[in-house]
Amino acid sequence: MATDTPMQLGMIGLGRMGANLVRRLMRDGHRCVVHDLDEAAVSKLEGEGAVGADSLEDLVAKLERPRAVWLMLPAAVVQPTLDRLAELLDPDDSVIDGGNSYYRDDMARAEQLAPRRIHYLDCGTSGGVWGLERGYCLMIGGPPEPVARLDPIFRTIAPGAASAEPTPGRTRTDGTAPDGYLHCGPSGAGHFVKMVHNGVEYGMMASIAEGLSIIEHADVGCRERAADAETAPLREPEAYQYEIDVGEVAEVWRRGSVVGSWLVDLIADALARSPRLEEFAGRVSDSGEGRWTVLAAVDEGVPFGVISTALGERFQSRGTGEFADKVLSAMRGEFGGHAEKRSRS
Amino acid sequence: MATDTPMQLGMIGLGRMGANLVRRLMRDGHRCVVHDLDEAAVSKLEGEGAVGADSLEDLVAKLERPRAVWLMLPAAVVQPTLDRLAELLDPDDSVIDGGNSYYRDDMARAEQLAPRRIHYLDCGTSGGVWGLERGYCLMIGGPPEPVARLDPIFRTIAPGAASAEPTPGRTRTDGTAPDGYLHCGPSGAGHFVKMVHNGVEYGMMASIAEGLSIIEHADVGCRERAADAETAPLREPEAYQYEIDVGEVAEVWRRGSVVGSWLVDLIADALARSPRLEEFAGRVSDSGEGRWTVLAAVDEGVPFGVISTALGERFQSRGTGEFADKVLSAMRGEFGGHAEKRSRS
Amino acid sequence: MATDTPMQLGMIGLGRMGANLVRRLMRDGHRCVVHDLDEAAVSKLEGEGAVGADSLEDLVAKLERPRAVWLMLPAAVVQPTLDRLAELLDPDDSVIDGGNSYYRDDMARAEQLAPRRIHYLDCGTSGGVWGLERGYCLMIGGPPEPVARLDPIFRTIAPGAASAEPTPGRTRTDGTAPDGYLHCGPSGAGHFVKMVHNGVEYGMMASIAEGLSIIEHADVGCRERAADAETAPLREPEAYQYEIDVGEVAEVWRRGSVVGSWLVDLIADALARSPRLEEFAGRVSDSGEGRWTVLAAVDEGVPFGVISTALGERFQSRGTGEFADKVLSAMRGEFGGHAEKRSRS
Amino acid sequence: MATDTPMQLGMIGLGRMGANLVRRLMRDGHRCVVHDLDEAAVSKLEGEGAVGADSLEDLVAKLERPRAVWLMLPAAVVQPTLDRLAELLDPDDSVIDGGNSYYRDDMARAEQLAPRRIHYLDCGTSGGVWGLERGYCLMIGGPPEPVARLDPIFRTIAPGAASAEPTPGRTRTDGTAPDGYLHCGPSGAGHFVKMVHNGVEYGMMASIAEGLSIIEHADVGCRERAADAETAPLREPEAYQYEIDVGEVAEVWRRGSVVGSWLVDLIADALARSPRLEEFAGRVSDSGEGRWTVLAAVDEGVPFGVISTALGERFQSRGTGEFADKVLSAMRGEFGGHAEKRSRS
Repeated sequence: MATDTPMQLGMIGLGRMGANLVRRLMRDGHRCVVHDLDEAAVSKLEGEGAVGADSLEDLVAKLERPRAVWLMLPAAVVQPTLDRLAELLDPDDSVIDGGNSYYRDDMARAEQLAPRRIHYLDCGTSGGVWGLERGYCLMIGGPPEPVARLDPIFRTIAPGAASAEPTPGRTRTDGTAPDGYLHCGPSGAGHFVKMVHNGVEYGMMASIAEGLSIIEHADVGCRERAADAETAPLREPEAYQYEIDVGEVAEVWRRGSVVGSWLVDLIADALARSPRLEEFAGRVSDSGEGRWTVLAAVDEGVPFGVISTALGERFQSRGTGEFADKVLSAMRGEFGGHAEKRSRS
Repeated sequence: MATDTPMQLGMIGLGRMGANLVRRLMRDGHRCVVHDLDEAAVSKLEGEGAVGADSLEDLVAKLERPRAVWLMLPAAVVQPTLDRLAELLDPDDSVIDGGNSYYRDDMARAEQLAPRRIHYLDCGTSGGVWGLERGYCLMIGGPPEPVARLDPIFRTIAPGAASAEPTPGRTRTDGTAPDGYLHCGPSGAGHFVKMVHNGVEYGMMASIAEGLSIIEHADVGCRERAADAETAPLREPEAYQYEIDVGEVAEVWRRGSVVGSWLVDLIADALARSPRLEEFAGRVSDSGEGRWTVLAAVDEGVPFGVISTALGERFQSRGTGEFADKVLSAMRGEFGGHAEKRSRS
Repeated sequence: MATDTPMQLGMIGLGRMGANLVRRLMRDGHRCVVHDLDEAAVSKLEGEGAVGADSLEDLVAKLERPRAVWLMLPAAVVQPTLDRLAELLDPDDSVIDGGNSYYRDDMARAEQLAPRRIHYLDCGTSGGVWGLERGYCLMIGGPPEPVARLDPIFRTIAPGAASAEPTPGRTRTDGTAPDGYLHCGPSGAGHFVKMVHNGVEYGMMASIAEGLSIIEHADVGCRERAADAETAPLREPEAYQYEIDVGEVAEVWRRGSVVGSWLVDLIADALARSPRLEEFAGRVSDSGEGRWTVLAAVDEGVPFGVISTALGERFQSRGTGEFADKVLSAMRGEFGGHAEKRSRS
Repeated sequence: MATDTPMQLGMIGLGRMGANLVRRLMRDGHRCVVHDLDEAAVSKLEGEGAVGADSLEDLVAKLERPRAVWLMLPAAVVQPTLDRLAELLDPDDSVIDGGNSYYRDDMARAEQLAPRRIHYLDCGTSGGVWGLERGYCLMIGGPPEPVARLDPIFRTIAPGAASAEPTPGRTRTDGTAPDGYLHCGPSGAGHFVKMVHNGVEYGMMASIAEGLSIIEHADVGCRERAADAETAPLREPEAYQYEIDVGEVAEVWRRGSVVGSWLVDLIADALARSPRLEEFAGRVSDSGEGRWTVLAAVDEGVPFGVISTALGERFQSRGTGEFADKVLSAMRGEFGGHAEKRSRS
């Protein structure tokens, strides 16, 4: 299944995502020049057929013009790398930022490189650790010409049309979306769509998590609750006597149900390995895109309640609600109790 | 300021609320017969002028017909007490449930007593530990005749018109709402309104708590954050360098601001005593009304997002979100990490 | 692919779901006796090989003992049908409610039928109009013996293991969840899980809808906003100049992305047919399960913010927030404007 | 009650807020030089004792050094006015922005003026149209020296300690918070606190609005609902038969209740004038501070669910959720209906 139009690509950043992108590209007949501060990562891919480069200069020197350099770096490292790279590249070369940059940074970077006539493409890349086999969903922003030129690269990285059944109602025959990659618009558009994608991901994940939690707690009627004025009584404990295997529920939802999704596949897998998820502390990280999605919705003035609630629940999982909670307890103490100590007189 | 129309009332339940109601009534010239399982509570009020009763039978015997008996009991104790009391009372007697019963229980209890022609009134009572001095806001449900008959009782308990400035746009001169008590409708209407009152209280409290927490954390830019892919970076730390005294903020909001409210008064007080609220663990209880308010909104099909979010934040403060959070962490682990251990091949 | 163990099933209710269940069963070699008030629906399935029945009595008479009767009826019709059916059935017969009954009704119905030793099974059925081909995800509640007896029926209706890749981490080899059906627990457990499934569905749908809406409005910077004190200004209009094809975004998300799901498949299809969705008014119905899921979460005291927000957004789409919105506008008018008409003096 | 320390202040912007500030200041013995593009506004205040100025230059010329100039302008006009004013002022003069600027703009403006040694103070001003009589709650940011110098001005504008009872637990005797004004911190701190104040205001308003709406709809059981599969049935219509006067509820909540607040006062007033609020369309504006509060909470990573929900409900009231709602309806159409037109085969 080698590509008809092999190309050459430089890859900077050989973490899991970067390395797997290189592998997927080489497997399809593309040639890759690779660089990472970690020399072992470079050597490993050299052993798999890539050309190693021990510096940005070396990488640039080993690429044919017009060059294409893909950055797969932590967000904080992109700008300094780009600054150095800009000094080394020539007009009509292209840089693709495949990480999770904020789309406004993309806009600024495209402007920064414009005087040198270096093309800047932002490419949101979804697929996680499974992408080597599944392919990666690509959301691309930037000027049309270099996006078109790099089409063979994107096509190889993307999952391809065969990875899902055709959309029955689709009549248009142009466009690459059915292949799993899309030129979304000018600079920043790719990361904008990827940002919202992650916001949607937060909401879907939270919905699944809330649902499984409601099922997990369907046995609350079997447990006693304190019968004091501070505890809301469970009026009908007999209606909450179910001990349901949430792992099996996730598994059954994988087939034929309306909630069938890759996220349900993943949680079914996690629960199959670890039915009580005991190895997790439940402190849920967030890496920026969910936050930026909320900011975008606020700027646009459109509803965002599910995504923001999902984000807020992550914040709370990390204990950042503690002060607010203390404020609540303090207010309850003031109006509800201990008058002897707090009387006005 | 003694009432023109002194009445006699039986009070069952001499906790803080019940005892203070009795004091407020006696201070205004009403006569009270009081009962509690705790004999010391009875003795104490006898010392202040009340007539003690050592049993329900004794209490009923000491009241003149038509009797009026006020229950100020934990929700769980109301029904058995009422069952016993119903056997002792006569037609045209009245029972007032001043606690936080679910309004649907009121409807059932009114029906239960109807064949005996005993009146059942539900009376939501707000005011907390300050009510002895401030008066209690009363939301009353039940048939018109006994509500009207007990008007002097309600009038004494309520704060009175002088406790707030008149509403400038109010032209109607009838009605007791400006005195701080209101006959809301038939059986259950009083506790329905009180239930929603508490739901509103949850939302207001949470809004204040979130706001003070945002102010408390206005110094996050002074602290370093981990610079890894799991942590959303703070893009502009220079904009979060404020160390603001939240207690003083609460105090200043008490005067002239749009958020001025009794709840702000209370949190200003709590923060004056304890600027860091260190004595609180931040596990926020809820005692039922907020939940029932959400159920009512769901049944009615009207928006309820602020009140339900406030309720959900209380749940989370008590750690009940742990399983959902673990599900989220597990999903993140599946798609984002550790491919070597979890690859499909 | 005919079943090894053909069975006989009575089906009452030949709407789209009921009729397709019959087709799927007959295609696999099961025999069906069918009844509906609509005679044409009965005739149509007779033409496809079913045995028609013109009354409940007739249906019961045409089934061999122990009988199995599946109800696929609107929620409101289940109880009266069941009441009549109970008179006709014999001990050890089974009734399966495949609709969307509230799980508490299931508990009551199982109790109602217990004295007659008729088995009652509740079976949540997900799959919508696509189930004939895809199979239906089944979530089953009831006593073990009749659930086991009816296994061939459930196995035929469900999608089967081949409809999705195996869960890589799954080591247990028992259980039917990988085949797309699951015995969740005693009476009501099936509809409980289906109820929560639909709650999760609401949250996932709302998350996708919010996300696509944020993308659709990414061009707000191209439009002018009123520059008055009542309108929040868009500080950086240059960051919102994207005109992104949301239909293509939905299509690209179908492959390789973390949000890949049947719901994304469906909206990609809808947008392919109708890019602006102009035929929809945007009044979003809800049919009960989302509400009940919220009630369950409230009873259990676990977080439910995403699901309840999704539900609340549906309420608001139907205009039921109007009074609340007027209250907000009225308050804003009071403190912010028109003092000349509303001064205190 | 004239001030002991009369000062002179320039006021630019004589809208309702600006004009009333001038009146309140003059009433207390301060001298004001006033300017507005609307000459009639200037003349009116001249008639009440102010010194009019027909240009910025004229205003600056009429003020004694060190000057103090208060800007009470729409947010969009502040920057150009400040740019011009900076050219006219001298070192040690002060500018106070009393409007609703974004606190980050304050930070930039303070830096802009620093080289000229002009002091910039940001002053969040709450109180709305009632402030002339009630006084205004002031939240002040900026360097300590000019804030201290202008203390008599702030003291006059603020409501004063007598406007509320003392906080019982307060022991510290320093500080101006009990007088209704507070120096919150360096540049921007005043508007930061005011911003959050308005966020809290949104949440409190929404909570009250949701609550009154739930009470207003307590009669849904009296109305019929469509009995089809698209409409969630009301299971217990007998529990929703209350016709409750929400205006009277708001009035009764004004006295003695936990939700007692200025906002409840205001809605009681609005409902007294207009029980059905028919003159309002229910399209609720927002003017920026609620949005910025959400952005701050997101940056800080602390819970913000109630405030963001309140903001989202305002967005939805203005119809901006329409596309998202159409997406939901489209998805429901896809999986639930019209199979004949949308079948895969």
